[in-house]
Amino acid sequence: MQSTALEKRLNFLREIDRLKSVIRQSPLLDKSRKENSAEHSWHLAMYALLLNEYACGPVDTNRVIQMLLLHDVVEIDVGDVPIHSGSSSESQAEQEARAATRLFGLLPQQQGSELLALWQEFELAETEDAKFAKALDRFQPLLINIFTGGGTWTENSVSLEQVFSRYGPTIKRGAPLLWAVCEQWVTQHFAAQASRMPRQAS
Amino acid sequence: MQSTALEKRLNFLREIDRLKSVIRQSPLLDKSRKENSAEHSWHLAMYALLLNEYACGPVDTNRVIQMLLLHDVVEIDVGDVPIHSGSSSESQAEQEARAATRLFGLLPQQQGSELLALWQEFELAETEDAKFAKALDRFQPLLINIFTGGGTWTENSVSLEQVFSRYGPTIKRGAPLLWAVCEQWVTQHFAAQASRMPRQAS
Repeated sequence: MQSTALEKRLNFLREIDRLKSVIRQSPLLDKSRKENSAEHSWHLAMYALLLNEYACGPVDTNRVIQMLLLHDVVEIDVGDVPIHSGSSSESQAEQEARAATRLFGLLPQQQGSELLALWQEFELAETEDAKFAKALDRFQPLLINIFTGGGTWTENSVSLEQVFSRYGPTIKRGAPLLWAVCEQWVTQHFAAQASRMPRQAS
Repeated sequence: MQSTALEKRLNFLREIDRLKSVIRQSPLLDKSRKENSAEHSWHLAMYALLLNEYACGPVDTNRVIQMLLLHDVVEIDVGDVPIHSGSSSESQAEQEARAATRLFGLLPQQQGSELLALWQEFELAETEDAKFAKALDRFQPLLINIFTGGGTWTENSVSLEQVFSRYGPTIKRGAPLLWAVCEQWVTQHFAAQASRMPRQAS
């Protein structure tokens, strides 16, 4: 029997419930546990709503919010790939594209195509909206690391130079004013770390 | 020292991280744990994005999404009040209004006032946007109960009549076509429950 449009939409909404069980590397700010990708997506949508005036160019906040709400649904099939894992980005991109086709393919055709296009726009990061969305997706975990005293940087022995190279270009490109804040935070964080390290014998 | 607008926004975004630790009564669909209010808000925003054509009247989907993203932030101060708890709705409303004033008061004045107004519009449930948002906020936990074989209804010994009276008016008012689906689901669910109950001695 052919599913109705409503049945397809409800089926998709049930399927994406699984994003609540995809665990990221970042902790909650109170360090009680790791964050999952569904609540991360909610938080990023709130970041977009509140920080839109720091975007690099003119953005449509509502499109950015929609992009961020769905940017991670592919992780239902692929899992979260942490920024510090050093995994091959080519095979990851292929797997995520397959997951996007499967998931958005659950929806009525036109709606599925529209959301797939929005997800692809985010991945390509060429439009103003996508550049800003990508910047927020890097900014939020950086903020978490700063306000939890190191977070995933401490766990993965990440250096100041690595933070600058892994977060800097994406945040600076989409939200230069936010990157200016990050530069201060990161510099202070690593200076404080260094001052707590035992001195080497001279 | 006076906080800048950006500092205020980042402070608010850090504060609402706590919504990830507010636990609702509803389980995840795989029953692995209870849902939290942050991931619930993400899911509802996705419901709004996908189900907007079932709204009772013309709605601005992006306003509905924004409303749903922030509708539960007051629970950071007040906690989640389950639909089947029978708590006094007057004192709850007062507490939530105080929480909204405190939380949105963390933001720069104009932005805080706009979001507070959007939250109040949701609570009043008089505009088309708010009626649809409220309907989804009732529809999602009903769907969870159906697809987990009873969920919070089983836990709280809720009857078919109570489901109809506690969910029906709000869903029917904001999304009548979704309520039509719910009526079928709920009727079938309770009929199946009854057929599994031990027969009373005649």
